[in-house]
Amino acid sequence: MNTIDLRSDTVTKPSKAMLEAMFQAETGDDVYGEDPTVTTLEKSCAQFFGKEAGLFCPSGTMTNQIAIKLHTEPLSEVICDLTAHIYNYEGGGIAFNSAASVCLIPGERGKITPEQIAQCIRPDNIHYPISKLVSLENTSNKGGGSYYTAAEIAPIAELCRANNLALHLDGARIFNALIASKETPAQHGQYFDTISVCLSKGLGAPVGSVLLGTEAHIKKALRIRKVLGGGMRQAGYLAAAGIYALQNNLDRLAEDHARAKQLEETLKTCSYVEETLSAETNIVIFKLQKEINPDAFLAKLAEQNILASGFGPQQIRFVTHLDFTDDMLEKTIQVLKSI
Amino acid sequence: MNTIDLRSDTVTKPSKAMLEAMFQAETGDDVYGEDPTVTTLEKSCAQFFGKEAGLFCPSGTMTNQIAIKLHTEPLSEVICDLTAHIYNYEGGGIAFNSAASVCLIPGERGKITPEQIAQCIRPDNIHYPISKLVSLENTSNKGGGSYYTAAEIAPIAELCRANNLALHLDGARIFNALIASKETPAQHGQYFDTISVCLSKGLGAPVGSVLLGTEAHIKKALRIRKVLGGGMRQAGYLAAAGIYALQNNLDRLAEDHARAKQLEETLKTCSYVEETLSAETNIVIFKLQKEINPDAFLAKLAEQNILASGFGPQQIRFVTHLDFTDDMLEKTIQVLKSI
Amino acid sequence: MNTIDLRSDTVTKPSKAMLEAMFQAETGDDVYGEDPTVTTLEKSCAQFFGKEAGLFCPSGTMTNQIAIKLHTEPLSEVICDLTAHIYNYEGGGIAFNSAASVCLIPGERGKITPEQIAQCIRPDNIHYPISKLVSLENTSNKGGGSYYTAAEIAPIAELCRANNLALHLDGARIFNALIASKETPAQHGQYFDTISVCLSKGLGAPVGSVLLGTEAHIKKALRIRKVLGGGMRQAGYLAAAGIYALQNNLDRLAEDHARAKQLEETLKTCSYVEETLSAETNIVIFKLQKEINPDAFLAKLAEQNILASGFGPQQIRFVTHLDFTDDMLEKTIQVLKSI
Amino acid sequence: MNTIDLRSDTVTKPSKAMLEAMFQAETGDDVYGEDPTVTTLEKSCAQFFGKEAGLFCPSGTMTNQIAIKLHTEPLSEVICDLTAHIYNYEGGGIAFNSAASVCLIPGERGKITPEQIAQCIRPDNIHYPISKLVSLENTSNKGGGSYYTAAEIAPIAELCRANNLALHLDGARIFNALIASKETPAQHGQYFDTISVCLSKGLGAPVGSVLLGTEAHIKKALRIRKVLGGGMRQAGYLAAAGIYALQNNLDRLAEDHARAKQLEETLKTCSYVEETLSAETNIVIFKLQKEINPDAFLAKLAEQNILASGFGPQQIRFVTHLDFTDDMLEKTIQVLKSI
Repeated sequence: MNTIDLRSDTVTKPSKAMLEAMFQAETGDDVYGEDPTVTTLEKSCAQFFGKEAGLFCPSGTMTNQIAIKLHTEPLSEVICDLTAHIYNYEGGGIAFNSAASVCLIPGERGKITPEQIAQCIRPDNIHYPISKLVSLENTSNKGGGSYYTAAEIAPIAELCRANNLALHLDGARIFNALIASKETPAQHGQYFDTISVCLSKGLGAPVGSVLLGTEAHIKKALRIRKVLGGGMRQAGYLAAAGIYALQNNLDRLAEDHARAKQLEETLKTCSYVEETLSAETNIVIFKLQKEINPDAFLAKLAEQNILASGFGPQQIRFVTHLDFTDDMLEKTIQVLKSI
Repeated sequence: MNTIDLRSDTVTKPSKAMLEAMFQAETGDDVYGEDPTVTTLEKSCAQFFGKEAGLFCPSGTMTNQIAIKLHTEPLSEVICDLTAHIYNYEGGGIAFNSAASVCLIPGERGKITPEQIAQCIRPDNIHYPISKLVSLENTSNKGGGSYYTAAEIAPIAELCRANNLALHLDGARIFNALIASKETPAQHGQYFDTISVCLSKGLGAPVGSVLLGTEAHIKKALRIRKVLGGGMRQAGYLAAAGIYALQNNLDRLAEDHARAKQLEETLKTCSYVEETLSAETNIVIFKLQKEINPDAFLAKLAEQNILASGFGPQQIRFVTHLDFTDDMLEKTIQVLKSI
Repeated sequence: MNTIDLRSDTVTKPSKAMLEAMFQAETGDDVYGEDPTVTTLEKSCAQFFGKEAGLFCPSGTMTNQIAIKLHTEPLSEVICDLTAHIYNYEGGGIAFNSAASVCLIPGERGKITPEQIAQCIRPDNIHYPISKLVSLENTSNKGGGSYYTAAEIAPIAELCRANNLALHLDGARIFNALIASKETPAQHGQYFDTISVCLSKGLGAPVGSVLLGTEAHIKKALRIRKVLGGGMRQAGYLAAAGIYALQNNLDRLAEDHARAKQLEETLKTCSYVEETLSAETNIVIFKLQKEINPDAFLAKLAEQNILASGFGPQQIRFVTHLDFTDDMLEKTIQVLKSI
Repeated sequence: MNTIDLRSDTVTKPSKAMLEAMFQAETGDDVYGEDPTVTTLEKSCAQFFGKEAGLFCPSGTMTNQIAIKLHTEPLSEVICDLTAHIYNYEGGGIAFNSAASVCLIPGERGKITPEQIAQCIRPDNIHYPISKLVSLENTSNKGGGSYYTAAEIAPIAELCRANNLALHLDGARIFNALIASKETPAQHGQYFDTISVCLSKGLGAPVGSVLLGTEAHIKKALRIRKVLGGGMRQAGYLAAAGIYALQNNLDRLAEDHARAKQLEETLKTCSYVEETLSAETNIVIFKLQKEINPDAFLAKLAEQNILASGFGPQQIRFVTHLDFTDDMLEKTIQVLKSI
């Protein structure tokens, strides 16, 4: 059996059908706006979430960073959870690309509440930066795949509107959240000014994310993508994979969630595990007993051809995805029980 | 009696003797490095703290912001207490001027420990910014005038050196810390790469702070001061006040501390006060009982010609200083007891 | 006789009367907006130029840099003369503080025309930055004190309005321009969105510049001054000098211009001079014959206690000012004729 | 016949053979450094130019912008030709991404000389930014495909080394320069600290550029690519096209040059053309007679299914490339002669 790679859902490779779609794509020079496949992806993704327009970018980091830049200027402050990807895993991009400050909320499994956000909003005083943007991450990576429902987002959106704050969604795993909550893209889309939708995680496309917003947002986002160097020429080969994924790989995310649940159940029975976060979607985070060395544990898994990620002190993360099959699940459970 | 202004120690005005020193200062064009009074201030202040060189700037915000810029570049991260002035009260300058990220520690009364700092140091991974600078604030404003002793600073300095981190001191009220700990400027100065020394708080000078560091730091700081617009021409009139203050106004800070202590003692006996932070130096922070409206409380004090500052939810801050006399103290105690 | 310092008009020192005004100033904490002298200076200077509000800053570099930041964001471009102070002598601040691009015009003695500006305005295309600001310098330092008249500014202002460009005046020596053109501050002020007025050059105040604009500009400028570290506490001592200068030192600039003219006339007769720019205000720039070494020439002047500045290849600059008297003029002419 | 697209060499589409290479590429998650095809491209491209390491990026704008960031900090200045792509067509990225200033040289057809560069180097003075980087563009786009030879680059490299300046090559069309000068990648590569090599222009790959430099440069470049959002997951599909292009599409650039020459010859005989720049590589720039409206001229070409670009006042640009065949050349010549 091949390696079982549970490090991330970014490691998936295109299926044959997706590859075929890629290499039959009609392309053009997208910097001139002439790649029909890119245009189709952008439009259909926007429509899906009920937004006016979309912009295809090389990565989710870029769609997030462009959104932050769209909504801030160098005197602004961004409000987000302390564990948010935009703050923790984008190389310090909030400061680097936007020269914006951050107000960090210690949320619950990566999720923040209207009350917490309200306390972060700065009064109008020259000693403080100007609160401009709230960013949610759905699902939350560091929160172990926890998700917001539309009902939880609604009052946050209301608070933002009332305080002239933009609201951005880091939707790296938004489809996992939608599948889990049985809600639609448009139900969530209505609450956000901009949305970053990743194609290369659970969806299985090789490269890219789409930024969604109003026509005006996307017009300005084009400039920012240009200056960051994110404009690609015949990008349709990549966009075609995204179109294929949106058409074929959404519903099957439920399988990833079910498999993650089974991993969680197994881990709960393992004596070397101190605690396991409830697997709400496709991520399972667990804490090893103090006497277990995490690196040694990962090495032991690797001996069995199972890859996973360390994720903070004593913690391990498993991520399920479309290249993680039932056979692999069975093998993984076996290994977890035996070590 | 005049207004009793306990809002901040920045409100002091020069005494007659200080004004005379200013008036008689020999000056020159400091942008050409030709103001002898500025040069004297910079040299003597540096010597005092055992540093190589100094740079006179219009404000403590500027000396702090220059120091941050000196030690970081746009991929860097600054480690400091969650309540640090550099993060909270400098307009978002860490991001604005230096495009640097922040790692914020929830310290104890504004003070952070080597263990907490160690946990903030980022591993060498492109997803993270690069940890570059630790900044301490001594005394801590938001911490209610709490202070670090040299013995507390030493292991932090050691940790920084071992991890290639610069260590900066926001010494807005460093002399209060030194008077309280009965330690010398040089004892503290040895641990820091750069120090921001404020002249216009407890020392009573009207304008300015001095940045201290190596010759190389100050050479580069000159450039940064220039680009921020902090170069002043005949600045000797202001510098003369600083020289006077360093010569005459240090030891008397003990009086401010004693008066603050008396205010604390009084507040502890007041039924409307829920909690009072121990007044370690010249700041007294207390929390009003829930049923008391802080704005109404401040208004009541103002009716009695006493000014103070709101300082977070239900909290009030008093700051003692050289224009707050024993008569004023007596009057304030009376008023506090009576309302 | 004392040193004759023709290096710059920044070297002047306050007269006794100005010093007296400074040390009798009523002051307060200007960061709290409570320094009455600062407020008076800001208001009267704004009124003088017909603008709504003013902000006192430590330097002309700061007022210029704040103005640039006010009118731009990091995708913007600033249009100015190739020799403009904001581009050449502010440490790279356009890029450093505002992350804005520059479009540089090779003007005539530092002055640019509407036609040249029109050619710089970028089309709406993501490959280009967005043209946002035109900045004029009046008088032009590198242009040897050349000046714009109101009639020359009017069509530039019209072009800016028609193209949504802000128009800023670097008025480091605006009073020299007004005296020379016999026009009023309000005549010029009407054309600009923001104006930087320097107090420490020809006017003879020791420190500071005032930024003028609308109430909204100045409200935002306060934030930018704060984050740059330009907020000063009891700044009234400096502001008082500015008030004195505006009341007493304007008309006398005509004397500086007359003396500069006399220096020009003398230089024209000197065999070692290849070319002298016509002295329109208080600056005289001349070019030495190729065989003359400029450093040696400056050294020779210095031997006679006359200081001047090198100013580009083979060029020397003299600047007249209120500490350059008729006696000094006579001595200088003598020396120029004799070497 | 299909549209004849002479707007740019970015419009080419992969040939069947290139597509097949893409389709069969072995891929992996390149953010984890696990895409073997990307790694092969980076290594072979680096080796080709005699550099230590390479980094595959989504665009030439990104490789240039990363290089600029590598060599500068926010007090730095970049020296380049006034018409350089990095200054003119990258959205103001020098200021946006690096907060660096520019010193712009009016070169000859986009090429600058050591003498001109020497005059741009700033003295060590706080009024100026710090000269840090010289960037050459080979071939020069705005210069109409003019190129530097190794012999011309050598003294520039020497000057840079002597003055502690980094030297970057914007090699958007470096292979056109090498084919025209009959020199090797290594001959040019030795002179530069970093090189941006574009795969999606003359080489015909759909997407991407490679940044070359030392191991240390590329290690830091990885961070910058991350923060800009340029990290792609299974990027091997794109990299495979680059490998194919480097193996198969270099020598054939001579054909593009020959066809450009023929277009130039034809244009010289056309009465509506005022002037034609000598076609040194694959770009032909010509100026229409004053009475001809350029937009109308382009529209007339478009009626004949020929697309070209306006390129400044009265100027038109043709770019030849691998999708511009002999048949198309003949047709184009016919049309040019007939209108």
